[in-house]
Amino acid sequence: MKQTNLFTKTIKELPKDEQSYNAQVLIRAGFIDKVAAGVYSFLPLGLRVLNNIRRIITEEMEAVGGQEISLTALAPKDLWVRTGRLETIDIIFRLAGSDQKEYVLNPTHEEEVSPLIKKFVTSYKDLPFSVFQIQTKFRNEKRAKAGLIRGREFLMKDLYSFHANQEDLDKYYDNVLEAYHKFYRRVGLGEKTYLTLADGGSFSKYSHEFQTFTEAGEDIVYCCDACRLGINREIIANQKTCPNCGNADLIERKAVEVGNIFKLGTKFSEPFNLSYRDAQGNENLVLMGCYGIGLSRVLGAIVEVCHDEQGIIWPAEIAPFKVHLLSLNQDEEAEKIYQSLRALGCEVLFDNRDKGAGEKFAEADLIGCPWRVLVSAKTLAAGGVELKARSEKDVKIVTPEDLIKYLK
Amino acid sequence: MKQTNLFTKTIKELPKDEQSYNAQVLIRAGFIDKVAAGVYSFLPLGLRVLNNIRRIITEEMEAVGGQEISLTALAPKDLWVRTGRLETIDIIFRLAGSDQKEYVLNPTHEEEVSPLIKKFVTSYKDLPFSVFQIQTKFRNEKRAKAGLIRGREFLMKDLYSFHANQEDLDKYYDNVLEAYHKFYRRVGLGEKTYLTLADGGSFSKYSHEFQTFTEAGEDIVYCCDACRLGINREIIANQKTCPNCGNADLIERKAVEVGNIFKLGTKFSEPFNLSYRDAQGNENLVLMGCYGIGLSRVLGAIVEVCHDEQGIIWPAEIAPFKVHLLSLNQDEEAEKIYQSLRALGCEVLFDNRDKGAGEKFAEADLIGCPWRVLVSAKTLAAGGVELKARSEKDVKIVTPEDLIKYLK
Repeated sequence: MKQTNLFTKTIKELPKDEQSYNAQVLIRAGFIDKVAAGVYSFLPLGLRVLNNIRRIITEEMEAVGGQEISLTALAPKDLWVRTGRLETIDIIFRLAGSDQKEYVLNPTHEEEVSPLIKKFVTSYKDLPFSVFQIQTKFRNEKRAKAGLIRGREFLMKDLYSFHANQEDLDKYYDNVLEAYHKFYRRVGLGEKTYLTLADGGSFSKYSHEFQTFTEAGEDIVYCCDACRLGINREIIANQKTCPNCGNADLIERKAVEVGNIFKLGTKFSEPFNLSYRDAQGNENLVLMGCYGIGLSRVLGAIVEVCHDEQGIIWPAEIAPFKVHLLSLNQDEEAEKIYQSLRALGCEVLFDNRDKGAGEKFAEADLIGCPWRVLVSAKTLAAGGVELKARSEKDVKIVTPEDLIKYLK
Repeated sequence: MKQTNLFTKTIKELPKDEQSYNAQVLIRAGFIDKVAAGVYSFLPLGLRVLNNIRRIITEEMEAVGGQEISLTALAPKDLWVRTGRLETIDIIFRLAGSDQKEYVLNPTHEEEVSPLIKKFVTSYKDLPFSVFQIQTKFRNEKRAKAGLIRGREFLMKDLYSFHANQEDLDKYYDNVLEAYHKFYRRVGLGEKTYLTLADGGSFSKYSHEFQTFTEAGEDIVYCCDACRLGINREIIANQKTCPNCGNADLIERKAVEVGNIFKLGTKFSEPFNLSYRDAQGNENLVLMGCYGIGLSRVLGAIVEVCHDEQGIIWPAEIAPFKVHLLSLNQDEEAEKIYQSLRALGCEVLFDNRDKGAGEKFAEADLIGCPWRVLVSAKTLAAGGVELKARSEKDVKIVTPEDLIKYLK
């Protein structure tokens, strides 16, 4: 994309009430816009990153057999009365319909997916299966001060699985757990994200969170670096050593919960009477698992983890563009390179604007594409273009032909 | 996809309060689920169709230079007070935030896009450009009885354009108008959809709607079949002949409004002071256009137009699968055909379930994929597989090799 065709520009004046680093830098770089506390629009650069994250999670969820659906934001209040959660969850937005009925904006979708699935399950032969969606959640948070990390309106992937017995649920749960690890590696959070034990509620000893370490985090996790396991502070009282390897040298870190997986058991199949007939003809409740990842939260966490003083350093697979091509009064030569990279399927942001070198460098660092390619009279005289990785300091001159090899 | 892996089944019992044909047949065939009046979830088959429509409109909007963004559903009430529309639009959902502020669920996005664009426009050099989004709209409709045609929560594409002068707006508007025609042709509504003149409000003589003719429509349009132009009943009093060709033989038809485009002029740039500096240094208000298409409504309209007594007849480019492959106890042979079609990139729903011929035929007709391919002992004895277009009565026996040629 040519930057003269991009309507956003970098912004110097930030919203006064924005305290979080991730939202500040994303607003400055023109990735998002703030509509209200915890409510952000995605602009072209930000939407490209969000769509990359979305593509990756979709691939991973389809790889574990998830069937994609799209549930609704609006739900009749009755669904939430049925499970009792209208009273126990305090961040539910409520609203009145013109049909004199009361509605909520779903903060999560167990209450909606369970009665849906009931319509399609009668026999053990219908099980197991799983469905997922990538859909907007609404949570009326009192403290929405962490930018994309705690939104009141945000994009989430939620997967729900349905099983006839515990063994089958356990097996599938482990599959999803591995898919989650793969997802975090692909979006660039693998190193700093640990599987973390948390309170299992009434159905299992532990539930599992995925926690990414950053000072911007709101959680405290005790980490075993020996086996890369975390223990959430909420259960550490009972757990002074790593329950996996016995390591007593646990390190306290601030962290953002970037995903969680949970064996629900019959918690939601019971109120909605989601049951199946087994081979003997007996009715049993379906066992459920739920598996969530906040996509916009993951985007915010990546920004918190992957940046320096100049701006964002996007991991390759989710970057808005792979290459930021900067022309300093050499538009004809740069245009050739732009076209040849695009012909190879390489995504390029081409800064063809009439601006000085200092401004172009600063904006490229702020926006954070993995590779910067500079075309100037000086680089051409030196025999080519200047190539620089956003994450490194060194630059090198390469010919346009070699450039293509580097970027492959 | 193998049908044994699809969690939905065809449903015999419909929601009692569902009166519209489009929702009835889509629920029966397992494409959607009804959550409340005008609120529908999309299940795997329905989401595939919706995503196909989404892909086509995205391509057409990018072809006219639209930059994709994603605005929010939640908006501070103040934005809507500013334009006065909080009082004049009666279908706005309102809700309270835990920050003691009042919010609305945007029924459309002029109030949100205008202040956003103001942050990025200062000079005439920043103009023109356009942005679009595919995003959920909320409208607290009193009568939500038309299935997907009048939703309270629905997916919409809205494009907004920004211009320095009327000539530029007029030119771009005509480009979008052509892109809309192309979109309706691609989704299979071209024949039955007319550009239709409607009230232009205070900024132009006419605005333009796109109206699709169906008995399920809530609008009345007077149609000139000579030049394929419609005139909405709301302005027919002044217009007894076709304003384009003078034809006095206008035919009255019921229709669904499947899109509208509108020259907003300064209606929204004025309250938000969205202005630019011209070459002479004077401040002027930006001229705006807006261009909407309800994607889920288009899906509903297609179902109303494209069906017979047995079920849906999907146009090729938006069908959930191109081919419905039915095996009658010939799973091994059918599997080979399934794999060879998939290897060619052909999307196939493979009915490998243990069901009788009558049930499989009835479900294939209900679901409505463009091609039905039957593999049975009888077809194999006759030298191949039986091929049938959903829209035709004839069947023919073709060899697996010829099948690939037919389906290309």
